[in-house]
Amino acid sequence: MLNKVKNLIKKEMLIHSCGIEREMLRVDGKGRLSQKDHPPVFGNKLKNPYITTDFAESQIELVTPAFKKAEEAYNFANILYDIVAMEDEEELLWPQSMPNIIKEEEIRIAEYDKSEDGIEAREYREELMERYGGKKQLISGIHYNCSFEDKFIEGLYNLEEDKTSFKDFKNKIYLKMIRNYLRYRWLVIYLLGATPIIHESYKDECKIELKEIGEGIYTNGKAISFRNGHCGYRNKIDIFPDYTSIENYLKSVRKFIDGGYIRDHKEIYNPVRLKPIDKANFEKSLLKDGIKYLEYRGIDINPFEKGGISLIDLYFLQIFNIYLLIKDESDYENWQIEALKNHDKISDFGLEEVILLKDGKEIPKTQWALEILEEINQLNIELSLGMKDVLDKMKDRIVDYKNTYAYKIVQLIKKEGYNNSHLKIAKKYKEESYNNRYKLEGYEDLELSTQILIKEAIKRGIEFNIIDRGDNFITLEGDGKLEYVKQATKTSKDNYISVLMMENKTVTKRVLEKHNIRVPKGIEVNSLEELKVNLEDIINKPIVIKPKSTNFGLGINIFKDGAQGKDIINAWEMAAKHDNTVLIEEFIKGKEYRFLVIDNKISGILHRVPANVIGNGINTIRELVELKNQDPLRGRNYVTPLEKINLDENARLFLKLQDKDFEYVPEKDEVVYLRENSNISTGGDSIDYTDYIPKRFKNIAIQAAKAVGAIFCGVDMMIEDYKDENSDYGIIELNFNPAIHIHSYPYKGKERNIGKDILEALGFN
Amino acid sequence: MLNKVKNLIKKEMLIHSCGIEREMLRVDGKGRLSQKDHPPVFGNKLKNPYITTDFAESQIELVTPAFKKAEEAYNFANILYDIVAMEDEEELLWPQSMPNIIKEEEIRIAEYDKSEDGIEAREYREELMERYGGKKQLISGIHYNCSFEDKFIEGLYNLEEDKTSFKDFKNKIYLKMIRNYLRYRWLVIYLLGATPIIHESYKDECKIELKEIGEGIYTNGKAISFRNGHCGYRNKIDIFPDYTSIENYLKSVRKFIDGGYIRDHKEIYNPVRLKPIDKANFEKSLLKDGIKYLEYRGIDINPFEKGGISLIDLYFLQIFNIYLLIKDESDYENWQIEALKNHDKISDFGLEEVILLKDGKEIPKTQWALEILEEINQLNIELSLGMKDVLDKMKDRIVDYKNTYAYKIVQLIKKEGYNNSHLKIAKKYKEESYNNRYKLEGYEDLELSTQILIKEAIKRGIEFNIIDRGDNFITLEGDGKLEYVKQATKTSKDNYISVLMMENKTVTKRVLEKHNIRVPKGIEVNSLEELKVNLEDIINKPIVIKPKSTNFGLGINIFKDGAQGKDIINAWEMAAKHDNTVLIEEFIKGKEYRFLVIDNKISGILHRVPANVIGNGINTIRELVELKNQDPLRGRNYVTPLEKINLDENARLFLKLQDKDFEYVPEKDEVVYLRENSNISTGGDSIDYTDYIPKRFKNIAIQAAKAVGAIFCGVDMMIEDYKDENSDYGIIELNFNPAIHIHSYPYKGKERNIGKDILEALGFN
Repeated sequence: MLNKVKNLIKKEMLIHSCGIEREMLRVDGKGRLSQKDHPPVFGNKLKNPYITTDFAESQIELVTPAFKKAEEAYNFANILYDIVAMEDEEELLWPQSMPNIIKEEEIRIAEYDKSEDGIEAREYREELMERYGGKKQLISGIHYNCSFEDKFIEGLYNLEEDKTSFKDFKNKIYLKMIRNYLRYRWLVIYLLGATPIIHESYKDECKIELKEIGEGIYTNGKAISFRNGHCGYRNKIDIFPDYTSIENYLKSVRKFIDGGYIRDHKEIYNPVRLKPIDKANFEKSLLKDGIKYLEYRGIDINPFEKGGISLIDLYFLQIFNIYLLIKDESDYENWQIEALKNHDKISDFGLEEVILLKDGKEIPKTQWALEILEEINQLNIELSLGMKDVLDKMKDRIVDYKNTYAYKIVQLIKKEGYNNSHLKIAKKYKEESYNNRYKLEGYEDLELSTQILIKEAIKRGIEFNIIDRGDNFITLEGDGKLEYVKQATKTSKDNYISVLMMENKTVTKRVLEKHNIRVPKGIEVNSLEELKVNLEDIINKPIVIKPKSTNFGLGINIFKDGAQGKDIINAWEMAAKHDNTVLIEEFIKGKEYRFLVIDNKISGILHRVPANVIGNGINTIRELVELKNQDPLRGRNYVTPLEKINLDENARLFLKLQDKDFEYVPEKDEVVYLRENSNISTGGDSIDYTDYIPKRFKNIAIQAAKAVGAIFCGVDMMIEDYKDENSDYGIIELNFNPAIHIHSYPYKGKERNIGKDILEALGFN
Repeated sequence: MLNKVKNLIKKEMLIHSCGIEREMLRVDGKGRLSQKDHPPVFGNKLKNPYITTDFAESQIELVTPAFKKAEEAYNFANILYDIVAMEDEEELLWPQSMPNIIKEEEIRIAEYDKSEDGIEAREYREELMERYGGKKQLISGIHYNCSFEDKFIEGLYNLEEDKTSFKDFKNKIYLKMIRNYLRYRWLVIYLLGATPIIHESYKDECKIELKEIGEGIYTNGKAISFRNGHCGYRNKIDIFPDYTSIENYLKSVRKFIDGGYIRDHKEIYNPVRLKPIDKANFEKSLLKDGIKYLEYRGIDINPFEKGGISLIDLYFLQIFNIYLLIKDESDYENWQIEALKNHDKISDFGLEEVILLKDGKEIPKTQWALEILEEINQLNIELSLGMKDVLDKMKDRIVDYKNTYAYKIVQLIKKEGYNNSHLKIAKKYKEESYNNRYKLEGYEDLELSTQILIKEAIKRGIEFNIIDRGDNFITLEGDGKLEYVKQATKTSKDNYISVLMMENKTVTKRVLEKHNIRVPKGIEVNSLEELKVNLEDIINKPIVIKPKSTNFGLGINIFKDGAQGKDIINAWEMAAKHDNTVLIEEFIKGKEYRFLVIDNKISGILHRVPANVIGNGINTIRELVELKNQDPLRGRNYVTPLEKINLDENARLFLKLQDKDFEYVPEKDEVVYLRENSNISTGGDSIDYTDYIPKRFKNIAIQAAKAVGAIFCGVDMMIEDYKDENSDYGIIELNFNPAIHIHSYPYKGKERNIGKDILEALGFN
């Protein structure tokens, strides 16, 4: 088998696919179980594929899609956390598998709508409540879903001599993995276990002797994972299904059901589950298409990770799976009973050097663990998987129990108390989520606008797919519809000619004029000769000179107080580099505002101010810039909504004109501008004015978008004095691909939920 | 006045605006008046602003819009001729003001729909028939509509000291021009007159002594313009309205109406008419807004011009208008009667050296004419109008009557007969129209596709406007709707994301695959490293290597029989110059066909063949190319549907590979290819296959367009054997801006009316 795998791994780098499910409790600021409803923004619990509830109304379940890379699943788990953490200002997310301090009466079973599925989901939970009690249901965990790529399994199949059907072969592979996982699961529990302590309020649920080691804190001093052990959630009797074939498996499960031990296969709380394509028709689907993936259920939430599981542990599970695939099985008959014994021993007493059983023979935990790790390390070398660091870290946990999560958690809780220590962690993650609010971890290569849109889609349970990453081309699917979107605002809602009208400044102006919307008067100049003919009329008048087509502000010169012929000719030549046709337009006085119009509504209004600092009478300009740059919204190279201010040569010259330098100490409240242009890209500030601009201008912006038939439109309007409703104005430009992040995350003013507006414009609810 | 004009003309180059109306009779191949209906494609006669009927059903009236440049009006008159000439294969357009050989009973009064306007139009014509007879109504002519730009008149107004209202000032200007036009109109008749002969069948309409100078050909031997003289169309009594003010004008006309001499102002058949903005409310509009433009009605159709009037004559009328504006009037009282006398004398006897009356004094025609021309020439010099050539030509007509149109027409008809000479001319123009069929004269700077679309729109009476010439951005207006169109197929009908899906080859493929449409399998390669990893799978297989985004065929390499690693790497590097991402796809066997899908229907299917010649056993390749290049559809630089073949270095090398050179004489029916690529731009042939491709592939193309939601879509499909419906196929690319001229005017096969399909897709009928 090793050689076969070796052969295939060389050609197909990504053979593995994994997804994470993670449960967690919503608690209030004091750590009490939230009594609030599941946030309505997450939509129907039965339909949101990413965010739903588990047993209780306050028990969030996060579900990542399946990914080929561990990093992707890891990032996505963090993204889901960020989204949920930001939804309720007051609440926190309990970062532990074992529940917070709860009273039975506080537990609200999750509520569902009155659909058939909704009623069933509710009834199922009510039954569980009755049979196992509420507290136990609140235990949260990580489920790790994994499979090998079909292509990889096909590769193995093709190397096989003795041919069965592909489906049978695939089942054989996965069943072997299940058996091996069950055999070696004690190692996973040891390495990843993170529930060594329970609170007094949970004590009665435990079937093991415990002592108090702090206020309300109980342990036996040796446990790795009470959740997997005798405080956890398990069947009333031990259940050992037959994993020799799918048929035998189904037959054996049927017996347990017929015997009245369990209601259905969902109630087998074994540490691994096999999953078919169609979960709703478990048996039928399993028989028809075989096993689709495996679900490992014994992983505790790692409180030291926002997403609940560390990347290194995900890497380990990946290589561990290859081990399970390759490792030959012994023919020891009672392996299932033995495996359960080892499981229990490690869970409840694993911090000690316990003795385990291997094919009926005793073996010390450490010895066996190191043996397995060494075998895995051999695989790592043979297959060039590059996982040495990961394996070394695991070895550290084995050779010194102080490196386990369990040990560290005991120390932490002892020091800070059960409730406090967890709340402190939850607050820290919430702050991280806040600082991440403008982005989608792991998707930073996408434009911010696309990240914002996807984040909002995930929140609402709209499935997304990236079809072309470099192009920011995605699909959004939900509510029975499929929408393609490029760069967040290029959608099916706009028609092509609207876009082309906006792209062409001459056409834009003519259309707006036709609709009696004020635009700067102007002329088109195609040659120097033409410019000279018209020069007389232009000299000394306030004008803007710009290339006919450009969206990036390049080649534009503004003469607010007019200019001489020479300067005009120079400016014309600059503009002519960008387009054969140059526009010379009257300059309309006032300030420029960007109106973001989406679907005939104003989504945001923004004004941009050049890079600047405000004095405090103490710090130098250099220091003030440094302070301002610490804002997490400021970064470099457009990965954040704002850019850091650079104290470059331009800034130096601009200050020199004001008789200042970087070491100048501005007085309190003195505003010092560091450059002329107000581009965000050179450190400019964006300021939200949405609530301050009079209705008249909002209507004009909406009418302008309507005039070209645009659903997504950035309207650039000069307004002489925004406070005066009757002020002069003029529309400078319409933009068909307006940036949205500047409105979502301005430097100053209210953050606008543009992602929501886009989704609504697309027809998603 | 001269100095004022001088001042203004320097700043505003285009002060003048003019449009042409031209009537003409449809006749059959033998010159008999057509009995067919007005071609239905021209739509409702009351609504098509460009093509309608005049008095008779077979009397076409062409109307150009108003243009600032004489050339534009000239070109448009030719365009309208081209359009009408191409509409009926058998018919010809009579190229003379005086009608063809007609019998009274052949004259069908134009028919209208049963709308109020339609009934009125019909009744008006029936009344005319009764009062003036049918034959006279068939006389056709040119009406020249002209005005000065408002800006120019404003300029004059601003220089005025004694201020009246602007409207009064404008009326004053135009009324002076009218009076001067009436005074000097004899000169226009002399210079442009072209009806010196009538046919026997018309003889009874004439109130002048005539003699037969050939079979059925009658003249007095001295006439310049019978149409303007006593064979023409005039009021029963002489009518001299008062042109001193608008109010006086209306008062005087009222008197003629009240006296029963005319029915309304429309019936004043004077050589000039004043026109208000709202023609339907003549008086009211005139009083409210004053004169909008003047209509000169005395111009004969010039049979030597397809459009009915020569460019030089249009130039003359332009400068003549400036003369009318500037020329001071004498205070001679009886000028109107005198002017009419001069008019009649020139019309009926102008070829002779007649004596005219100038302010009551006799003056020989030639002397006075040269005096006027000299005054105009002085204007030309003072205002730097550059019209010397034009004026010299006019002088030629004065000093030698043999240079007049009238004289030349007499000679022609004498030689070739009345019917024959005119039919010969009509046939020549029809051939010209045919050779022009793919283009719009005077609009050759627009893309062919746009020219084709506009031509079809004009034909159907859909008004067009060019909003941005360089961008091929136009509007189409009619049937109560306004559509913006860029480059003929970029319209409001396509949504933006459809376009972006087609632009991105990866997205296109994924969407088509999702719809179970076959596309070549392939991979995306972003780096040389990635290429090397995949190289093994690609070597020696038939593949295409191309940049991810390109619409111009640049950077594409095809290895039909596979290639070695080195060649693949080279091809990858070439493609990578055009896009960071390179696609490597399987090569699907067969030939490539372009399906033009418009609004879910197949508009055309085309296959392109590399530049080639077919031997005749006699000519060399060089000679065959020369012959093939004579096709009027072949030109250079994309102004024609096909490009001329170049015998360049590429062709030489390609022939060398076949052991041939330019002097090789191919055998009869031997096809010699001159290059490998089939681009039209390098002389390739386009061949229409629309009627030969099986329905299955047509459906697939339609489904492909539907998959991306495209209304306008060029589907590039490889088909292994088009004759076999079950043949393998694959879609290579979807194009969102498909060229249409290649289908409209292929090298071989049926010409497809794509313009019509576009207009229908846009919702025009």
